[in-house]
Amino acid sequence: MKRLLLIPALLFALVTLAQEPIDTEAIEKIKKEGLEYSQVEQIAFELIDKAGPRLSNSAGYERAAQYAINQLTEWGLENAQKEAWGEFGRGWEMNKSYIAMTKPYYLPLIAVPKAWTGSTDGPVSGKVQFIEINSEEDFEQYRGKLKGAIVAFKPRGDQSPTFKADAKRYTEEELDEMTEPRVESSGWTPEQIAAWRKRRAFSETLNTFLTEEGVGLIIKGVRGRHGTLFTTSPQGYNTDTPIGVAELEMAPEHANLMARLVENGVEVEVEGEVKTTFNEDDLQGYNVIAEIPGTDKKLNDEVVMLGGHLDSWHSATGATDNGAGCIVMMEAVRILQAAGLQPKRTIRIALWGGEEQGIYGSRGYVKNHFGDSETMDLKPEHEKISAYYNIDNGTGRIRGIYLQGNEAVGPIFTEWFKSFEDIMENTTITARNTGGTDHLGFDAVGIPGFQFIQDPIEYSTRSHHTNMDTYERLVIEDLQQIATIVAGFVYNTAMRDEMLPREELETAETE
Amino acid sequence: MKRLLLIPALLFALVTLAQEPIDTEAIEKIKKEGLEYSQVEQIAFELIDKAGPRLSNSAGYERAAQYAINQLTEWGLENAQKEAWGEFGRGWEMNKSYIAMTKPYYLPLIAVPKAWTGSTDGPVSGKVQFIEINSEEDFEQYRGKLKGAIVAFKPRGDQSPTFKADAKRYTEEELDEMTEPRVESSGWTPEQIAAWRKRRAFSETLNTFLTEEGVGLIIKGVRGRHGTLFTTSPQGYNTDTPIGVAELEMAPEHANLMARLVENGVEVEVEGEVKTTFNEDDLQGYNVIAEIPGTDKKLNDEVVMLGGHLDSWHSATGATDNGAGCIVMMEAVRILQAAGLQPKRTIRIALWGGEEQGIYGSRGYVKNHFGDSETMDLKPEHEKISAYYNIDNGTGRIRGIYLQGNEAVGPIFTEWFKSFEDIMENTTITARNTGGTDHLGFDAVGIPGFQFIQDPIEYSTRSHHTNMDTYERLVIEDLQQIATIVAGFVYNTAMRDEMLPREELETAETE
Repeated sequence: MKRLLLIPALLFALVTLAQEPIDTEAIEKIKKEGLEYSQVEQIAFELIDKAGPRLSNSAGYERAAQYAINQLTEWGLENAQKEAWGEFGRGWEMNKSYIAMTKPYYLPLIAVPKAWTGSTDGPVSGKVQFIEINSEEDFEQYRGKLKGAIVAFKPRGDQSPTFKADAKRYTEEELDEMTEPRVESSGWTPEQIAAWRKRRAFSETLNTFLTEEGVGLIIKGVRGRHGTLFTTSPQGYNTDTPIGVAELEMAPEHANLMARLVENGVEVEVEGEVKTTFNEDDLQGYNVIAEIPGTDKKLNDEVVMLGGHLDSWHSATGATDNGAGCIVMMEAVRILQAAGLQPKRTIRIALWGGEEQGIYGSRGYVKNHFGDSETMDLKPEHEKISAYYNIDNGTGRIRGIYLQGNEAVGPIFTEWFKSFEDIMENTTITARNTGGTDHLGFDAVGIPGFQFIQDPIEYSTRSHHTNMDTYERLVIEDLQQIATIVAGFVYNTAMRDEMLPREELETAETE
Repeated sequence: MKRLLLIPALLFALVTLAQEPIDTEAIEKIKKEGLEYSQVEQIAFELIDKAGPRLSNSAGYERAAQYAINQLTEWGLENAQKEAWGEFGRGWEMNKSYIAMTKPYYLPLIAVPKAWTGSTDGPVSGKVQFIEINSEEDFEQYRGKLKGAIVAFKPRGDQSPTFKADAKRYTEEELDEMTEPRVESSGWTPEQIAAWRKRRAFSETLNTFLTEEGVGLIIKGVRGRHGTLFTTSPQGYNTDTPIGVAELEMAPEHANLMARLVENGVEVEVEGEVKTTFNEDDLQGYNVIAEIPGTDKKLNDEVVMLGGHLDSWHSATGATDNGAGCIVMMEAVRILQAAGLQPKRTIRIALWGGEEQGIYGSRGYVKNHFGDSETMDLKPEHEKISAYYNIDNGTGRIRGIYLQGNEAVGPIFTEWFKSFEDIMENTTITARNTGGTDHLGFDAVGIPGFQFIQDPIEYSTRSHHTNMDTYERLVIEDLQQIATIVAGFVYNTAMRDEMLPREELETAETE
């Protein structure tokens, strides 16, 4: 069992000063390069605007991977390459997406095809039928009646005016609160998880039903506001899953407009066309890996890793989820190279695939290189990795770090953060775990894996998984700060006499 | 010259109690009907969702007008009818609007045709060319090179994260500040107005140039954020203006994405289609007028008016601009009818056309009925109208009223507001003017014309003139409050011994 711990920073500072010698000259070089000669904007343009949406196993993902390999190689990193992590499934592309209401009046509607859903039979048009299916029992009333139909589902959630700002930074009070043990109720209850699993399973059953009935087009009102819409997570990449009906995820205002009309007896018609293509040429999933080789003959077989997921959703260019993480990690290794530093340990950057579908790329990599978290069958490389640093909470600047219960690292990070006091408003070190992304696979086999605490900015309100996760959502100054601090942490980890302390493996499994 | 005045409310209250007898029983009936039996939601559905966008002289405007006439008649109002106010110009409809980026990758783009612009020559596709034309001198470099081209203009404005909430209510401090004389600099300077006129005039010249050059499609990045886009004001309804090139107003994120790509040497292609139709069958502009006839033989040739503009922009259903104003004005007369009140003076509701293009409908009505504000040639009806009440600041509840410099009305309104203290957080009476809408025409000929102070909610950030001005932007409770208070004010005005005091006409001209 992991215990939560308040780090008494001042006390540790005195004790650890001697134990944590910092190469202040190197850190100053890092800060100068990261803050005065930043290339964050150029990397952002290449990864986000130019590569475009980077859905796992899509052409956009491949464009981004090739850019990263070329760019990292150009900066002098070695062994830059794609590395397969296991079977992912189908690639998928959008080729056409158009939908408009044509009756009772014409209005173009904001919608995007759900990833891995199928095409319409060319342009389609006709009456919109809102259906309510909550269980298999509801199938009967529709069976045999939906051939070629345009069926719609109402969105859930509230679209009324909001009196809270879309963007925010953490207050000191909120950061202080994070150092307290997490209140149990903050996560989902087992009942909620069970209900979610049931809904998800039924959603697959429903898709199968609608496909078998020969539905022509599905319109699904989703969460969002003011033209922002949140995409959801389908299973169609899996080759076991049949390719479903063309499905458009629609801005709630537009879906609700049609729903209110239909509910009040007004016939609604739409016209639209969805064309998507699948690619089964290569079902393997890939990460991008590159290295700055260590220079110390005794330590250069040890490794420090840093990374973020390269894949994104498809309805926008994935600027904050997780363009931001890849930008700052690429910038961090560029900073180290440009500063001419010679790390003792090898520094390895990983840009992961398949994160959005289940943290697949990083978990696969951990399994291939370090060990199986289920059997706890560990590989030799497991002994040679000091730490993994991850960024995947959007564009917001670093306010601290989550220790994932690895209490012994607290005083070390406290010391390291001191070099960055001029670019950090405060430094919050919490023993808490944070979940949902690529450090988890490392943590699961007892490798110190960390996510930083970042200001949320517009992550949950506007950018995370939305059609509006574009370049505009990035705060460039914040990305510069993140890249600089990460470069410092990675360099310190590579230069430290010892690898970072680990939690005992017995405890890792119970999380 | 109009002077600004702080109303010492308490003092007036004592003096005016005897002068302003209020029929408290009637007011209680109004409040009961407006707050407990509200039909605001039903009216909103009919006007907003069902009639749809209500661009001046469009089919949607006609649907809304017919609904209003039928509904007002059903409630027992008399003489419900369309009344021409003068020549407006062409009707216009959107019939198709599709645009997507196809190179370097496919992405559907959020855009809406600018009102009164033309059609593409069927589906078009090709390279996007960003052009910068700031003066006629810039024409030369493009002359002869734009035949069939898809030309684009970058948006202005900032799309970075916002730390201010979209929706707000006025604080007491802000309301207090409104009772102070307006700081001169709060409006545009003469230089700014001159610059705006120049830009606007040049915009017409530019349109003519692009039309003559045979441009295939114009893409214009406009103001907005997160999928919300603001439409702008074209002149194409005017039959003197040639029908211009098909022009799409695009969400700034999408226009800027293409602009950044092109600026960095990446070829961008789009495919799209715009189809619009013009209607010149009837160039007249119309208002909707209906009356509750006065019951007092001596006073029933006098009239109290209330209104809001029925026309909206075309990219959404115009819920707050100005569906809200029409909903509450219709509801106000319904309340009076349902409460079975017998006003002494005639109450006349007006739903105006052509407001968005230049406050045409109400100005035309004033000119036809009351007098010419330029010549100050007044008509007999001018002596018979007590007041005009207008709502056109969105969905937000009433927080007070602008006196438009008509100081003598202050103590009367102070007294009237007291009946609504239980549904008003405070009551701000300011001598200030507020502009930009339909009370101005009345004010210009010396008829007391008023706009209420309303909470802004999301008016300037999300709804006013946007593609997201939908039903969701309405705050139903606030509309109920507005309708109830307006019904009370209108009734009090209809029952008062005297008409409301007027400013001297000599002073009206100098505003």
